[in-house]
Amino acid sequence: MNKKTRVVIVGAGFGGLQAAQSLAKAEVEVLLINRDNYHTFVPLLYQVATAGLSPDLIAIPIRNLLRYSPNTKFLQAEVKEIDFALQLLQTSEGTISYDLLILATGSSAQFFGIPGAVDYAFPLRTLADAVSLRNQIIYCFEKAEGELDDAKRQQLLTIAIVGGGATGVELAGALVELVLDSLQKDYPRLNPQEVKLILLQSGERLLAEFSPSLSKYTYRKLRRLGVQVMLNSKVCQVSADGVCLQDDIWLPAATVIWSVGLAGALPTSSPTPAQTHKGKIRVLPSLQVSEYPEVFVIGDLAQVEHNKKPLAGVAPEALQQGVFVARNIQRKLRGKELKPFSYFNKGRLAIIGCYSGVGKIGSIKLTGFLPWFMWLAVHLVYLPDWRNRLLILLSWLHAYILGDRSVRLILSNH
Amino acid sequence: MNKKTRVVIVGAGFGGLQAAQSLAKAEVEVLLINRDNYHTFVPLLYQVATAGLSPDLIAIPIRNLLRYSPNTKFLQAEVKEIDFALQLLQTSEGTISYDLLILATGSSAQFFGIPGAVDYAFPLRTLADAVSLRNQIIYCFEKAEGELDDAKRQQLLTIAIVGGGATGVELAGALVELVLDSLQKDYPRLNPQEVKLILLQSGERLLAEFSPSLSKYTYRKLRRLGVQVMLNSKVCQVSADGVCLQDDIWLPAATVIWSVGLAGALPTSSPTPAQTHKGKIRVLPSLQVSEYPEVFVIGDLAQVEHNKKPLAGVAPEALQQGVFVARNIQRKLRGKELKPFSYFNKGRLAIIGCYSGVGKIGSIKLTGFLPWFMWLAVHLVYLPDWRNRLLILLSWLHAYILGDRSVRLILSNH
Repeated sequence: MNKKTRVVIVGAGFGGLQAAQSLAKAEVEVLLINRDNYHTFVPLLYQVATAGLSPDLIAIPIRNLLRYSPNTKFLQAEVKEIDFALQLLQTSEGTISYDLLILATGSSAQFFGIPGAVDYAFPLRTLADAVSLRNQIIYCFEKAEGELDDAKRQQLLTIAIVGGGATGVELAGALVELVLDSLQKDYPRLNPQEVKLILLQSGERLLAEFSPSLSKYTYRKLRRLGVQVMLNSKVCQVSADGVCLQDDIWLPAATVIWSVGLAGALPTSSPTPAQTHKGKIRVLPSLQVSEYPEVFVIGDLAQVEHNKKPLAGVAPEALQQGVFVARNIQRKLRGKELKPFSYFNKGRLAIIGCYSGVGKIGSIKLTGFLPWFMWLAVHLVYLPDWRNRLLILLSWLHAYILGDRSVRLILSNH
Repeated sequence: MNKKTRVVIVGAGFGGLQAAQSLAKAEVEVLLINRDNYHTFVPLLYQVATAGLSPDLIAIPIRNLLRYSPNTKFLQAEVKEIDFALQLLQTSEGTISYDLLILATGSSAQFFGIPGAVDYAFPLRTLADAVSLRNQIIYCFEKAEGELDDAKRQQLLTIAIVGGGATGVELAGALVELVLDSLQKDYPRLNPQEVKLILLQSGERLLAEFSPSLSKYTYRKLRRLGVQVMLNSKVCQVSADGVCLQDDIWLPAATVIWSVGLAGALPTSSPTPAQTHKGKIRVLPSLQVSEYPEVFVIGDLAQVEHNKKPLAGVAPEALQQGVFVARNIQRKLRGKELKPFSYFNKGRLAIIGCYSGVGKIGSIKLTGFLPWFMWLAVHLVYLPDWRNRLLILLSWLHAYILGDRSVRLILSNH
């Protein structure tokens, strides 16, 4: 009996999970390694952070998703070190060898060495991040209600979002909804005029990956919703009390959210493969690492270009790479030549909130209700679990019909 | 203008919350203090611990529940000390004075000084307890799948439940469901025969508050479901590896659940009122503390008897006391004589799981499907939130129709 080729996949985000599923019928043995025992549906994290969805609804047990992949095993472990020369992984659960490796460890927040950012700003990359941020937002409102000092209360009620990309815009819109719908009812003694949402963008426009007209629409929409959008604003320091911008502008804010800067999250490796300054791994068009043809890199960790620009780091890119890498591995096993990856862009949507979004599909630009609705529908369809899909749909119907965000909990560990 | 009487309620469990709601129309100013910003629906905690329900579904924001109580303020704070003489509460958010006080701080797990119990056994009193226990159970299965040593694997797959009251029985049944439905599908390489559920009861029968015939039914049912029920078994020690019984019987078990022994959870007080050996406060028939007639005690913290026996510590008792205390306070304010509390027992149900339960309503004893169904229905009706009620119903339908427990997540804090 021939020993089957052992494909190890590290990371069960969009890319890694898709690769495992696409290899379900291949003549290989697959081991999927992930730090958590669930897949996090990252695009909806901001709704968890703003009390719209229960965290469990966007965390899907990986073993559920592998029930139709009999050739795939799952291992919950942290990969500590990769030895590309010996083809070995050191993990929290022991040493694992591979014949072929798919690295899909994604990205983590990058703080650019800005003082205080790593200590005081709230990132939004994991489920735990989302729950911490939710705790913080509700906690500040609870505190503010009893705070008699005007300046302190104002600070508690100020949320600064650093980064005007898709996540920053989504968060700003969702926070407007949270404040308008629920918090006003919860804290009748607070003056809603005191709540301040600030969106800080270092560049000259929001949603830089969309066209300028859509950026302008987003800017105007957020302004109309009461968000203070500050363009060309670079953060120099973050503290427990607020953020400092260039030119020593000081913004008091009890909550600072970090939604800018993603760096490739490669585990410690020896030797280290060629990386970009953002920690992404340079790959061949086949998504292989040139020095180690048995190693494939997909998703946020891979430096892949499309129309001469690096990919944006959204789910469809990782999903397509997951499917592609599974096919290329099958080609490799049959001794065929590997194909180059090319991304098929079906369009791009961004949600602002309060029934507004923007989108670009082919050459058509969309603004307003339609892209808002499409964004929600597309994400519901892509969520890989029927039960959670239904429960999320109900949560949304409840939120939009009754105007309420239900998961306003401060969950502690006592 | 007369200053309104200030009623402070400590604790937003069944009793405290009900008291606040029952005082909504009274001519008083109410302040409800609770450690968390949510009410925990304790009867369903065991379903969170066994991955059937999302924790958020049984945690209802208190401000939601007080929207129709305009005279009631909410303060999220920990009560550090009560000064009954000066009528002051020291809390994490400052000092608070009261004209009338309702103490509804409930109970906490009691470990009877058994070595290791407080360190290694998992209690099930709070939402955080339920999530920790869920993490532990799923974690042990993940670990067991990769464990080649037979004895160690067997230990990882053993769960010992200490206490054969309602909670212990519920947990045993729900664990059977979890293992049969979901874990077998999740871990096809594990032998289900190796999973061992042990229910340890110090007394000679399960569900001691029901009649012997119902205890016997429960015993037989659990045995048939594969639970190893050990009666007359006293735990002498708990360690990370298992439990030690009297006569030096050693049971290896990676997970030990503590579902026995509740003590009244009175915050530090000066002077300390008269308490029972279980830390419950002795109260007058009016639920007042005899030395301090402005202090009322309700729920698990109060020592109240019914038919010469102390109350069992279930939700209906606390709810009735909450309604009653609100009425007595209104009588007091009108200068009328206070009435004595008497509990109206509508009956008692206990759920075993796998479509079985037991119950006693008046003189009628029930076993099997009917009390199982009634238990679920009653708890759904008592859950004080429409949205969560619907989502729980859907979770149950999903679980029982598709035979799956969906919330099999190991949530960590990274």
